[in-house]
Amino acid sequence: MKRIAILTSGGDAPGMNAAVRAVARKAIFEGLEVYGVNYGFAGLVAGDIRRLDVADVGDIIQRGGTFLYSARYPEFATEEGQLKGIEQLKKFGIDGLVVIGGDGSYHGAMALTRHGFPAIGIPGTIDNDIPGTDYTIGFDTATNTVLESIDRIRDTATSHVRTFVIEVMGRNAGDIALWAGVAGGADDIIIPEHDFDMAEVAQRVKEGRDRGKKHCLIILAEGVKGGNEFAEELAEYGDFHTRVSILGHVVRGGSPTARDRVLASKFGAKAVELLLEGKGGLCVGMRNEEVVASDIIDTLENGKHQPDLSLYKLNKEISF
Amino acid sequence: MKRIAILTSGGDAPGMNAAVRAVARKAIFEGLEVYGVNYGFAGLVAGDIRRLDVADVGDIIQRGGTFLYSARYPEFATEEGQLKGIEQLKKFGIDGLVVIGGDGSYHGAMALTRHGFPAIGIPGTIDNDIPGTDYTIGFDTATNTVLESIDRIRDTATSHVRTFVIEVMGRNAGDIALWAGVAGGADDIIIPEHDFDMAEVAQRVKEGRDRGKKHCLIILAEGVKGGNEFAEELAEYGDFHTRVSILGHVVRGGSPTARDRVLASKFGAKAVELLLEGKGGLCVGMRNEEVVASDIIDTLENGKHQPDLSLYKLNKEISF
Amino acid sequence: MKRIAILTSGGDAPGMNAAVRAVARKAIFEGLEVYGVNYGFAGLVAGDIRRLDVADVGDIIQRGGTFLYSARYPEFATEEGQLKGIEQLKKFGIDGLVVIGGDGSYHGAMALTRHGFPAIGIPGTIDNDIPGTDYTIGFDTATNTVLESIDRIRDTATSHVRTFVIEVMGRNAGDIALWAGVAGGADDIIIPEHDFDMAEVAQRVKEGRDRGKKHCLIILAEGVKGGNEFAEELAEYGDFHTRVSILGHVVRGGSPTARDRVLASKFGAKAVELLLEGKGGLCVGMRNEEVVASDIIDTLENGKHQPDLSLYKLNKEISF
Amino acid sequence: MKRIAILTSGGDAPGMNAAVRAVARKAIFEGLEVYGVNYGFAGLVAGDIRRLDVADVGDIIQRGGTFLYSARYPEFATEEGQLKGIEQLKKFGIDGLVVIGGDGSYHGAMALTRHGFPAIGIPGTIDNDIPGTDYTIGFDTATNTVLESIDRIRDTATSHVRTFVIEVMGRNAGDIALWAGVAGGADDIIIPEHDFDMAEVAQRVKEGRDRGKKHCLIILAEGVKGGNEFAEELAEYGDFHTRVSILGHVVRGGSPTARDRVLASKFGAKAVELLLEGKGGLCVGMRNEEVVASDIIDTLENGKHQPDLSLYKLNKEISF
Repeated sequence: MKRIAILTSGGDAPGMNAAVRAVARKAIFEGLEVYGVNYGFAGLVAGDIRRLDVADVGDIIQRGGTFLYSARYPEFATEEGQLKGIEQLKKFGIDGLVVIGGDGSYHGAMALTRHGFPAIGIPGTIDNDIPGTDYTIGFDTATNTVLESIDRIRDTATSHVRTFVIEVMGRNAGDIALWAGVAGGADDIIIPEHDFDMAEVAQRVKEGRDRGKKHCLIILAEGVKGGNEFAEELAEYGDFHTRVSILGHVVRGGSPTARDRVLASKFGAKAVELLLEGKGGLCVGMRNEEVVASDIIDTLENGKHQPDLSLYKLNKEISF
Repeated sequence: MKRIAILTSGGDAPGMNAAVRAVARKAIFEGLEVYGVNYGFAGLVAGDIRRLDVADVGDIIQRGGTFLYSARYPEFATEEGQLKGIEQLKKFGIDGLVVIGGDGSYHGAMALTRHGFPAIGIPGTIDNDIPGTDYTIGFDTATNTVLESIDRIRDTATSHVRTFVIEVMGRNAGDIALWAGVAGGADDIIIPEHDFDMAEVAQRVKEGRDRGKKHCLIILAEGVKGGNEFAEELAEYGDFHTRVSILGHVVRGGSPTARDRVLASKFGAKAVELLLEGKGGLCVGMRNEEVVASDIIDTLENGKHQPDLSLYKLNKEISF
Repeated sequence: MKRIAILTSGGDAPGMNAAVRAVARKAIFEGLEVYGVNYGFAGLVAGDIRRLDVADVGDIIQRGGTFLYSARYPEFATEEGQLKGIEQLKKFGIDGLVVIGGDGSYHGAMALTRHGFPAIGIPGTIDNDIPGTDYTIGFDTATNTVLESIDRIRDTATSHVRTFVIEVMGRNAGDIALWAGVAGGADDIIIPEHDFDMAEVAQRVKEGRDRGKKHCLIILAEGVKGGNEFAEELAEYGDFHTRVSILGHVVRGGSPTARDRVLASKFGAKAVELLLEGKGGLCVGMRNEEVVASDIIDTLENGKHQPDLSLYKLNKEISF
Repeated sequence: MKRIAILTSGGDAPGMNAAVRAVARKAIFEGLEVYGVNYGFAGLVAGDIRRLDVADVGDIIQRGGTFLYSARYPEFATEEGQLKGIEQLKKFGIDGLVVIGGDGSYHGAMALTRHGFPAIGIPGTIDNDIPGTDYTIGFDTATNTVLESIDRIRDTATSHVRTFVIEVMGRNAGDIALWAGVAGGADDIIIPEHDFDMAEVAQRVKEGRDRGKKHCLIILAEGVKGGNEFAEELAEYGDFHTRVSILGHVVRGGSPTARDRVLASKFGAKAVELLLEGKGGLCVGMRNEEVVASDIIDTLENGKHQPDLSLYKLNKEISF
């Protein structure tokens, strides 16, 4: 192993830059040369590749987004695209690749490995929905950004004695909703991984109202349904002066939290260690406070991400 | 003048608490007794009034929202409601009222004054759309909250080379859009106070794209049209990978900025001074860095708020 | 178990209010009555105790500090003080106590349990220096606050090509320095748990400078030595245009992060569960992502907090 | 006028990058070529000058510090240095210079103009201590950063019933102390522009304490004396459980506020307009909400910055 490359793929997540920096610095520390691939797999196939030295990844640890850019590129699912990508890497004499992103990125890394090119996946997505790790890069930052919005909305909800349905990102996963909901003192949290009954939701709102509670906040994971649709259904059970707030792309950006930067740094260094050991086809993760690596195929095929459902029960018991 | 009361009305704005605190403290400093009215004019008519002492307004200067609560109350437009309100105030021996809020609040204050009860208006709304003042309480905070979101969205827009239409609050006024747009380096700012041509907007986006610019941000004041509608119309001129972000109630809350707290403190103290001078029917404002008072009727009838349109021209020249 | 009480003790930490809220709400959910003790053990001995109902702990989850106040009270080390405290609790019919704080608080809880009064300890301190748990309440928030300051100082260090020694809190523990240092991309991190050689520190600074690096940041845990003393010693090895920044009490306050609020909520609920099971003399903790309870005496006498030293090595490899 | 250059000088201030961007963009908009000078006057004399195009100043409006770097350079006070600087500018065919910084920068701009080279000064410093303008670039951001720290310290002061002396930057000016003090609800504000009597300060602290106030915050401008010295003198009047917090370089950095970015944008565009009109030897400013230009010699020799002392009186009346 003499030269490795890095790319970021899928939706951007805060901490991706910290991961790129860690991969590059660790590799340089170990005597490797490092290349950055722009625009994810699209750039890989197009050969949009540049050398990264120590200074190129300086002053980026605190930046949101990804300075390698990202792009959707469904064409990489074809063998033709994959072989073209490997060809480009070989042109630069690159022997290993680190891919930072969500499950789409993992599929790309898996394909390259199957073709004999060692690739390592690092879980980077705000949604926290990747198997093989307790936390993904960007989840902590996005959760805190959502929380800040919840805190702001509480001011306005309290001032006007209103109910707010706050729709939050997370694709099919309820992690952001769960964590931000518990942390925000939400009256109810609605996630894809747990049933809910609108009559009970309404009952909970009503009880808070009757007890003199000024605000009522319902955190709704986007994977369940849209905020406006939810609010309309809730309205059938009574007039709760409901407003809807949809927290969209705002929560993707921003400077990463300490935790996301530390996680990204650990993952990046680990990925380089694995390549140096001659390993490929693995994804790194954090499990029970330990950095681990697992087979990327097995993880994608048999792993299943589960949010911490104890938070769901906890919220029912302490937020009312 | 022995006793005065305060209420907040209309949409809540960050800094309202700082204004209530200033009114209460200044009044107590001058030897007056102070009362707080809950829930705006609705609470006034209902007699939801409580004594405020020094400590009651402690530790609130930094809080968003209004701890006196607010409410819509169209019934106060009737003479019956107004007289009932005055009756309630007299029950408590109250001789003067300070009303913090937007133009609805001013109309309430004007009505009370016409019935012989001295009332002073303080401009409190994030929209900055009140005549008689260069700035309203809450505008600076809301603008900075919007700006923080723009900065976050830029991360994601740059990472994915996307165009974002960001719809911001402001009712019929373009002030938030203008200030946050210039401060956010927006490619274009669309406000109710200035015509725009969609073909030119598209042209501007295209030129930036052609020059290699990674992100494109268009700030749209809600008073013009909805963000989704705007994006659809823009799409007729080309595919700019456009996403829409609607910054809603989130921007109403949050801890007020230094400027909003200072403005609120000055306004609050001035309002008490005016009542002590036996004056009513006035609204306070900041004009050319000076705290002023003007006739509330004249201000509402003849005054007209204009945003700083030099910002519109400036942005065309420096953000491209 | 019918009635329980809560107190906060030692230095305040962000998330203490979230823990108090969780204890109170969970207890009420389980049918218990809850009391809050003001000013820690001092207030306990003085009988400064009040009933807390659901609404009393509303709207505090997002607040820094502790609304039960805290105080140093060395007198609680005496048996007389302890017995007086138990007497006060019995006056209110209280059967169990939850103590939130650092190791001083644990000693208090241990003493009460030894006198037959069941007490449970919850680790609340920004320093993360309590055995029996991977994380204490407040650590994540303080680390992020320090990180925000590091990010700000980097702006100024870069603009003026300067070296900064940033002294951070943590008493005898290096956790805050380690996490914030790795997350901040610090050139060097100096902690009590690891030797350092000033000549090597200077060499590292010099190498960065020679490579054209604009800023140099050294994070220094207060447990090692003072920032000014450190800078003077560094100056003996060359003129690095060094400035010192001491981040003091600022990092204690502020709204808690999502993680601290979730941790506090879990800990609070667990403490109540333990009391309901008739247990006392335990402290709760988070170990390998699981909420655990351990004997408070054993934990204090045999447990030893160790920071994550893998971060020390990691930083040497990726921050240069 | 065909080519102009920009430099930043003196202590960095948030918003300097926004000003550089505005100068560059406005100049390019008007058909000029633009050059950036690195490291202030030191770089000018050394000829460290580079062409700036549209993209070079992209994505910097939100960044703290100055991407043109800054440096102290007393040698520019000599005629030799000044003539050398002009020589370097002429080598690049540059006809005009914009200098962003504090009064040292103004002196440099004045010297160049006296030698026949048109230079325009833009006030950029967090201290707000430049005559000829109501506000300098960076003041609003620094004030809000200080305010955030005050809000955090209040949490801890309240939790422990303590008095805090908070020393804030500002050189010989009390502006930051005044604005942040009023906005932070400080019990007392000590500034160079107003006498104070320690016995009265102590009396004010004592009265708050007697009234049951939990925290006491005294904001001290660094131009008066050091925080520790002040606290020792205060201690002679009683034990107020005083702690000292010195907010140092932390407040220089950080992303600029909306107001600072707008101010910087207006100033930058105005400076270019003046150069295009063939004017030099001027400094721009904001007076009574209007962008103005005044003679730089007259401003430095006869102008005198005064903070808004009405804030001092206001604080005595509403913060107790």
